[in-house]
Amino acid sequence: MNIKDVIRAEEGEIFDIELDENVLKANAKLAQQNRELLLKHGVNSIDVMGSIGAGKTSLIEKMVEKLKTRYRIAVFKGDLTTTIDAEIISRHGVDVIAINTGKECHLDANLVHKALKRLNLKMVDLLFIENVGNLICPAEFPLGSEKRIVVISVTEGPYMVVKHPFIFMDADVVAINKVDLAEAMEVDVTKLGGDVKKINPKAAVVATNCRTGEGVNQVIAALKL
Amino acid sequence: MNIKDVIRAEEGEIFDIELDENVLKANAKLAQQNRELLLKHGVNSIDVMGSIGAGKTSLIEKMVEKLKTRYRIAVFKGDLTTTIDAEIISRHGVDVIAINTGKECHLDANLVHKALKRLNLKMVDLLFIENVGNLICPAEFPLGSEKRIVVISVTEGPYMVVKHPFIFMDADVVAINKVDLAEAMEVDVTKLGGDVKKINPKAAVVATNCRTGEGVNQVIAALKL
Repeated sequence: MNIKDVIRAEEGEIFDIELDENVLKANAKLAQQNRELLLKHGVNSIDVMGSIGAGKTSLIEKMVEKLKTRYRIAVFKGDLTTTIDAEIISRHGVDVIAINTGKECHLDANLVHKALKRLNLKMVDLLFIENVGNLICPAEFPLGSEKRIVVISVTEGPYMVVKHPFIFMDADVVAINKVDLAEAMEVDVTKLGGDVKKINPKAAVVATNCRTGEGVNQVIAALKL
Repeated sequence: MNIKDVIRAEEGEIFDIELDENVLKANAKLAQQNRELLLKHGVNSIDVMGSIGAGKTSLIEKMVEKLKTRYRIAVFKGDLTTTIDAEIISRHGVDVIAINTGKECHLDANLVHKALKRLNLKMVDLLFIENVGNLICPAEFPLGSEKRIVVISVTEGPYMVVKHPFIFMDADVVAINKVDLAEAMEVDVTKLGGDVKKINPKAAVVATNCRTGEGVNQVIAALKL
């Protein structure tokens, strides 16, 4: 038996609101202003994106541990309503600003702009911006950062990259996390990495276990930090 | 060290587009029409929502196996661009319509309305509508279904419920999946279930392993099927 039918959403349909060009243009313009502000103060900035529980916060924690003696680090942490992760990261002795989006499913350049105004950028060398747990919506909203990491987890299944291509198109680094569970999940890490490379040949793909720290040095090297 | 600051997105901010009341009202109206159409034809309809890789498709497969001798089943399967999951479900001998949302991060009542028009509703008793893998955006877009299942996975971490409360508010059943990995992930399933109950005391919480079928009968019972 085959699939009975395939329906494709067309641009301009009434609920196709994410693609509103005015919103995207306004966001892109403000993202560019954020970028200029960061560059002016010599702040290196990195987006960290990925689905719920992929390991974004754990990766940031491990990078902060390794980098905080070399750089003055700040972290923006996006979440709907909680500050749990922001508190976890702040225990590492770096400045953290929590950004609560309410029901919004992604950060945008406006929220990041507000957060940047609360920070003394002269005192920051490196900024991580952790987005809300979502592998889809953040792709369309640049925030102004220099580089983008996407964290995926083998627990998300064997097809997760091909099913969500857009987020990988602009990624500089893709961390395939929880590789210790790959066998139990029957997921082929090399195949997942190949799926990423087909979408974006320039992305550096690194296998990680953010609990043990495996692969974190390679992520840092890929970001040229 | 504490969090330096907490920024909260306010309604009416320029990029706060999801909360556009006109869009939500138009969606709600069309969802009501979908509901009436389904009721008129005696079709029981169930949303299946959850993040990427939580096990939505696996749960539907197991339910289809157990229920297809008792009901004539159809499945709508939302995904950005692929039909991988739709093909997997169609192997079980039920009618499947794939709905590709493009860059959209959730189904809406309009897309479901289009899919309903392609289906001979007189030949259907039970309809599962699997949303795009996303634990945030689908919460605001009712589709017209009778009941909602949310599938979460222990691999998504110990705080995943409290961090994404909105999706649980209208859930009839919450399946906590991959319970075989709970110990390895250091996640307390009872605690996760308690987090759900705090948000929505009426939700039935079922521990599942959709690979082995553990808990699937309880999900079916909770849906009164």
